[in-house]
Amino acid sequence: WRAFSASSRWQLHTKEMHEELLSSLKVNQSRLMEDIHYTCQWGTGQKWGKEETETGMSRLALSDADKEARDWFVQTTKALGCHTTVDSMGNIFAIRPGIRNDGPPTFVGSHLDTQPSGGRYDGILGVAAGVEMLKVLADNWVETEYPVGVVNWTNEEGARFPISIVSSGVWAGAIPQETAHNLREVHPGTATMASELARIGYLGETPASFNNMPMAAHFELHIEQGPLLEMANKKIGVVKGVQAYKWLTVNVKGRDTHTGTTDLKSRADALLAASKMVIHSHRLATANGCLASTGILNLKPGSTNTVPGEVSFSLDIRAQKDHTVARMLQHIENDFPKIAAGEDILNSNQDCTKGLPCSITINQDFDSPATLFHPDCIEAVSRAAHSVLGENSKNLLLEMTSGAGHDSVYTSKRCPTSMIFVPCREGVSHNPAEYCKPEDCTLGAQVLLQSVLRFDRMRDE
Amino acid sequence: WRAFSASSRWQLHTKEMHEELLSSLKVNQSRLMEDIHYTCQWGTGQKWGKEETETGMSRLALSDADKEARDWFVQTTKALGCHTTVDSMGNIFAIRPGIRNDGPPTFVGSHLDTQPSGGRYDGILGVAAGVEMLKVLADNWVETEYPVGVVNWTNEEGARFPISIVSSGVWAGAIPQETAHNLREVHPGTATMASELARIGYLGETPASFNNMPMAAHFELHIEQGPLLEMANKKIGVVKGVQAYKWLTVNVKGRDTHTGTTDLKSRADALLAASKMVIHSHRLATANGCLASTGILNLKPGSTNTVPGEVSFSLDIRAQKDHTVARMLQHIENDFPKIAAGEDILNSNQDCTKGLPCSITINQDFDSPATLFHPDCIEAVSRAAHSVLGENSKNLLLEMTSGAGHDSVYTSKRCPTSMIFVPCREGVSHNPAEYCKPEDCTLGAQVLLQSVLRFDRMRDE
Ligand SMILES: NC(=O)NCCC(=O)O
Ligand SMILES: NC(=O)NCCC(=O)O
Repeated sequence: WRAFSASSRWQLHTKEMHEELLSSLKVNQSRLMEDIHYTCQWGTGQKWGKEETETGMSRLALSDADKEARDWFVQTTKALGCHTTVDSMGNIFAIRPGIRNDGPPTFVGSHLDTQPSGGRYDGILGVAAGVEMLKVLADNWVETEYPVGVVNWTNEEGARFPISIVSSGVWAGAIPQETAHNLREVHPGTATMASELARIGYLGETPASFNNMPMAAHFELHIEQGPLLEMANKKIGVVKGVQAYKWLTVNVKGRDTHTGTTDLKSRADALLAASKMVIHSHRLATANGCLASTGILNLKPGSTNTVPGEVSFSLDIRAQKDHTVARMLQHIENDFPKIAAGEDILNSNQDCTKGLPCSITINQDFDSPATLFHPDCIEAVSRAAHSVLGENSKNLLLEMTSGAGHDSVYTSKRCPTSMIFVPCREGVSHNPAEYCKPEDCTLGAQVLLQSVLRFDRMRDE
Repeated sequence: WRAFSASSRWQLHTKEMHEELLSSLKVNQSRLMEDIHYTCQWGTGQKWGKEETETGMSRLALSDADKEARDWFVQTTKALGCHTTVDSMGNIFAIRPGIRNDGPPTFVGSHLDTQPSGGRYDGILGVAAGVEMLKVLADNWVETEYPVGVVNWTNEEGARFPISIVSSGVWAGAIPQETAHNLREVHPGTATMASELARIGYLGETPASFNNMPMAAHFELHIEQGPLLEMANKKIGVVKGVQAYKWLTVNVKGRDTHTGTTDLKSRADALLAASKMVIHSHRLATANGCLASTGILNLKPGSTNTVPGEVSFSLDIRAQKDHTVARMLQHIENDFPKIAAGEDILNSNQDCTKGLPCSITINQDFDSPATLFHPDCIEAVSRAAHSVLGENSKNLLLEMTSGAGHDSVYTSKRCPTSMIFVPCREGVSHNPAEYCKPEDCTLGAQVLLQSVLRFDRMRDE
């Protein structure tokens, strides 16, 4: 293989030869799992099982732990012969040269940041599989036609700085860099993305943009984070797109008053109003066959004997169709002010004393319309999956739409993109006990490797 | 007055002479207001008006600001000839000797700690009026029959360490000192009452107890914190007791999961369950003609795209009658677990997708049964009020029950006690804009002064 690939160009191989080469390249399962768990020494989270690796992760974007994981990524990819660039959003691009360098690299990408109490696979699997791809290529002296790369995107989770997939959004020109740089951390603190990028030494000089860092394609391996693959006994999800989602911040203002001396009708209780809104958003989601979720709720002043004068909460709305999300937003913008004003929109006020009106503001922080991935990339993934899964592949494959957002949403605006999903236990994610079997991680990484190599060959077809 | 009182004993005066002396002793309004506002330099809060004194207060118990206010109290009372003792709960007792010292002092007490966003009068007025009493006595060379004192109680608000009136509770033997010392601050932090007492130098050596610091009586001047006096155009509330209250902490456990990939029926959403409980507690309060309030709510993990797996919230229940509070608790203990389990107790689930069950624990943190004050103290206050208000006094007085808890609740378990209320603007308290007119502060302080002197004389009757 070595002499052969060094002396000949891929496109000169016959299709059959190429297929043979592809199936001879094998991901090393124990090495892949070691990389995953090794990097989980930085930001180790809650223990859920007996084994050393049975803990969750708590590696918020741009934390000290994230810096250490980034340093590992830079050192490892450099040692594998990559040229590594950090852009102004802290995105790290590791590029392995190809035979021809007159076209942009085909990228594998995901993220090393996690939820505050997240797992070991969400994002981490995708980056580790990218590194494993580089190792397999190096071990086998494979020269690709064009360069290939691995990218670690910054703050994918949106858990610390409250816009998800924000740095691929800046790269794609969809989110202004200023907006991203000025994002303030969600939990008490004054840090911004810019200040934290600078603090940990990852505020790169290359402006974050597809112009400076063009991609021929972007492939992303990820755990499904939902139950569909597991329930259907499938091994690989061929992801054709991502559902639409919007993030809102709702701020309800009432009046701080004493809990012991203020009768119910003299209260402008911001928490009572917010509680009604949380319930109402679930009713609306039920009625519209979509999702609504509140993950953050902060109140002021936060004292047992003071009626809260202010409540701020997040609202995450998701649906397959853009028009469903739009309809949800309409309902919310119509109904929430009525709830704040004390109207009986829930049909449940009759048993509750009517208090004084609260005021409300609703801000849209983030909007990601429904995304469709590129047919070429979907085809590369699909062919790779069939090849990797072998004879029974038809029964092991599922075409699906992602419920979660991924940086692939934004790369898809600027280059052909698609994703590969692998099952995770009970569909649980954003939870310390998130788990993906080693053999499933490996299958996914194998499909990822083949997808990139197939796409590399397809580029000149 | 000077020579006279120095040479003669109060009980030797005729009733008429005593009344004359009493009405000649005048609270100095500008000095009283200066003391209030001077001490508000420590822990100054939110601005609400144009004037320098038009700000709220944020002086949490045992904070640096509280230490400074305490230092002022110690220095000022010492300068006024008092002997000052700090007990093991940081309660500060300033005692001015009497002619006879074979009986315990008659105390005036209140507190210098405030809510996180409280006002300038809640507690502060009572302590400042006590200091003003000492000044009037000193100016006029008054010698009381028995000693008189002023006490600053620690953490009355229960805002930082989540038991209100906790330190008078320890003094009264109603709350174990260990429980109090181990109380952890409500907002993220690891400090306990004991560690903060030690840190600011107010962990006194005298064990907090009525045995070590007996009181002949306890009088407390306070703003009403409710609207009744203002609405009725009254000037002085003669407080005959305090309503019952209980504080609970409710902990709801569900499961952290991804907001984008977890359908509504697969969620154990702790916040959705908690929202239903907040609303249900208001329904129960409406049905039982009492109060229920949630002032603190914390959730975990606190990320926009994670369904909260855990919510903890406070519940403050108050009613005139103990049996009403007991009935509320029964309902809560019966209904909340059903709500957590997903039963349709609110009659509103029909439009909401039923999710997975959550688990729940309910802890009682604090219990203060309905309190009745002592007839002798009520009489002293009532007589003082009639004397201070003059001819029209009947129309300016209101007998009332306090909606808020006060340290007088616990002193009343160990010595005759009562309280004096003055109106505050719109009944608003636990709010930066809390306001009491200078003339009303003065009227209250005048009634307080006379109540103490009347009680001092009544002791030997
Ligand atoms: N994969 C993932 O959990 N991304 C976070 C963005 C989202 O909220 O869907
Ligand atoms: N006066 C006052 O606000 N005290 C706090 C105790 C309570 O919650 O009633």
